[in-house]
Amino acid sequence: MQVNGERFLKDLHDLRVFGASGVGKGVVRPAYSPADIAAREWLVGRMRDAGLDVRFDPVGNLWGLAKGRSLLIGSHSDSQPEGGWLDGALGVVMGLELARAANEAGGPAISVVSFQDEEGRFGVTTGSAIWSGSLSLDHADTLTDSAGTSFADARAAMAHLAGEFVDPARFSGFVECHIEQGPWLDDAGQSIGVVTDIVGIRDMRITMEGEQNHAGTTPMHLRRDAFQALSAFNTALNDRLRNVVTPQSVWTIGHVNLHPGAHSIVPGKVVFSMQWRDGDAVRLKRMEDVIRDTACEVADTMGMEVSFGEMLGLEPVAMDRHLHKAIAQAAQDLVPEGWREMQSGALHDATNVASLMPAAMMFVPSINGISHAFSEDTNEADLLCGLNVLAAAVPDLAKSGAGSA
Amino acid sequence: MQVNGERFLKDLHDLRVFGASGVGKGVVRPAYSPADIAAREWLVGRMRDAGLDVRFDPVGNLWGLAKGRSLLIGSHSDSQPEGGWLDGALGVVMGLELARAANEAGGPAISVVSFQDEEGRFGVTTGSAIWSGSLSLDHADTLTDSAGTSFADARAAMAHLAGEFVDPARFSGFVECHIEQGPWLDDAGQSIGVVTDIVGIRDMRITMEGEQNHAGTTPMHLRRDAFQALSAFNTALNDRLRNVVTPQSVWTIGHVNLHPGAHSIVPGKVVFSMQWRDGDAVRLKRMEDVIRDTACEVADTMGMEVSFGEMLGLEPVAMDRHLHKAIAQAAQDLVPEGWREMQSGALHDATNVASLMPAAMMFVPSINGISHAFSEDTNEADLLCGLNVLAAAVPDLAKSGAGSA
Repeated sequence: MQVNGERFLKDLHDLRVFGASGVGKGVVRPAYSPADIAAREWLVGRMRDAGLDVRFDPVGNLWGLAKGRSLLIGSHSDSQPEGGWLDGALGVVMGLELARAANEAGGPAISVVSFQDEEGRFGVTTGSAIWSGSLSLDHADTLTDSAGTSFADARAAMAHLAGEFVDPARFSGFVECHIEQGPWLDDAGQSIGVVTDIVGIRDMRITMEGEQNHAGTTPMHLRRDAFQALSAFNTALNDRLRNVVTPQSVWTIGHVNLHPGAHSIVPGKVVFSMQWRDGDAVRLKRMEDVIRDTACEVADTMGMEVSFGEMLGLEPVAMDRHLHKAIAQAAQDLVPEGWREMQSGALHDATNVASLMPAAMMFVPSINGISHAFSEDTNEADLLCGLNVLAAAVPDLAKSGAGSA
Repeated sequence: MQVNGERFLKDLHDLRVFGASGVGKGVVRPAYSPADIAAREWLVGRMRDAGLDVRFDPVGNLWGLAKGRSLLIGSHSDSQPEGGWLDGALGVVMGLELARAANEAGGPAISVVSFQDEEGRFGVTTGSAIWSGSLSLDHADTLTDSAGTSFADARAAMAHLAGEFVDPARFSGFVECHIEQGPWLDDAGQSIGVVTDIVGIRDMRITMEGEQNHAGTTPMHLRRDAFQALSAFNTALNDRLRNVVTPQSVWTIGHVNLHPGAHSIVPGKVVFSMQWRDGDAVRLKRMEDVIRDTACEVADTMGMEVSFGEMLGLEPVAMDRHLHKAIAQAAQDLVPEGWREMQSGALHDATNVASLMPAAMMFVPSINGISHAFSEDTNEADLLCGLNVLAAAVPDLAKSGAGSA
């Protein structure tokens, strides 16, 4: 089969018009916004032209279905509140071009999907989470966005388009191409990342309570200062985690709430977020142990009470071995020095779909590692390289998917 | 002259009835509240009974004036939003008892003051700041409390009582007795603190800016994390200040604002408060140098931009040598093992009055160092000890004050 790079790039640029905003190639196309729905309706036409049977499901996931059992390729076409033109859109348009080329070539059968609300206006990867069964539709309908709009009300804007949910059994496997959203490929001057696994995530709030006091009359050695405890915890944690982590492990304290938060008062209480990610569930647990132990030890030393909130998390997901190998082989054939295996540190729809069928992901570089910003971009040569690698892998992807079904 | 401890304690307990709240001996009597005004009107009667000429000035400071040139003794009778029965009230009632006893004994001449809004509903030590000229009445009238009420509107509640401002020249000196609001005396089992000086204060906001990024895809070594910079600054600062400070120096990070403050985003910016206090202006400057240098070095090492807000401050104030010596001598005579010299880490009305005349302060213990809370208290024996020490010092206080005028 023969892909058409020019047609692929034109579709990408045409899709960008829906919600085009900001500087550069910025896009504002959050899930269920008029721009998002208009973009999906435009995609309907392009999918029909590619010979696909088109359907929206009840939550606005858009399906371009090939006849019979098929390989599913896609991503999402909704954007962050301030996003770029490729985050999600690239994977959808690449699926469209591959399905179109396969249709022109008489096979193999390739279907396309644009999942809804991957960017989490209402949750995390909402559309694919509902489809995969990890989030019930009843529960999802009660979720609200930051303006207070419910998911039920938001999806009602697409009710006139909605059909039935699609049976996952019609797909032999799922492949998602996405921008990396990190600096590794761009730093290395490489074009393709073949994803080995999507990292797991753990997230909880930690509370430390000491004693609120007068910042003038309370001597340093008698203070039970919640900020000092947080700082000591952070310093000790950074030191201790070094023995447990890999260069791909990350941990973040991104939210800090000091009480009462006044210049002249020794803070008596801090609530802060602790999030960590790793591709290995055992290492995630080891990191959790270090975090809990360090917090307890620092609290003990500094006369604080410590408490841990509910720990939320998603398990790491390994990509399907056969699909992964097919993409890696195509990359090795086309750009022997220009690819690498890598983890995905971000969550993707593939995390959910992997619970239903063999799934794999491929990355192209993000210039300077930037995403979730108007300035997100990827060199055209890398976009085309991604298309060509997946096109070369399609025979194997369709075969190996069928084999493992 | 002969003071009456029973009468003094009864006045303290009677004053507590105005605004009595919460557990223990708690008081809610903020400046210009009905409870505060009622308490001041009750004090008017007690001052008249003590033979004093009573006057309110335009901002609600209450004066019990002896005839001719006199020693001024007092503090404030307003409270924190949730305060104790002695913070300020002790110094006013002690002044009342000493003036009454002096009047009964035929001298020396002692006047009494209860300053208004020492607790800073509208600023810091508002009433004495206006009287001493460090805050103009026009400016003060524009200040608002946290509910948006202006100082002008608040003092209008006392307009029917208001007379002229009192001429500072009629006083030979000022003595303020106050609870310590810190743990030193209570820890040492001592009854009297003779204040050497009231510490100076410096306060500014520091901003550090790095790069906001994805908490999943940004590797640790490429992050420019504002929280990590704050934590590293704090750790380095604690270490470096040890070479500069004394056990009486204090420094506090009490307010922290991380941006954007989300679990999944590496924070790109932090704004935090940095406050430090010391009795020595030279040391305050040395601490400032360490703070600025450390912030710049940490910012440099971690790829951050640092900026410093306007630095606010009050200079340290040394207590008058003659008045201080008179109190110390009396303490030595009455409780040779039970007193010490000490700094005041908190601000007091004496800071303002010291710009007008010789001023001195004496502390009695705060149980467990607690203040600005309903649970604030002092043992009765220590209250009486404080009264007896000042009574014994009065002849010298009146003499040395007259001498230095």
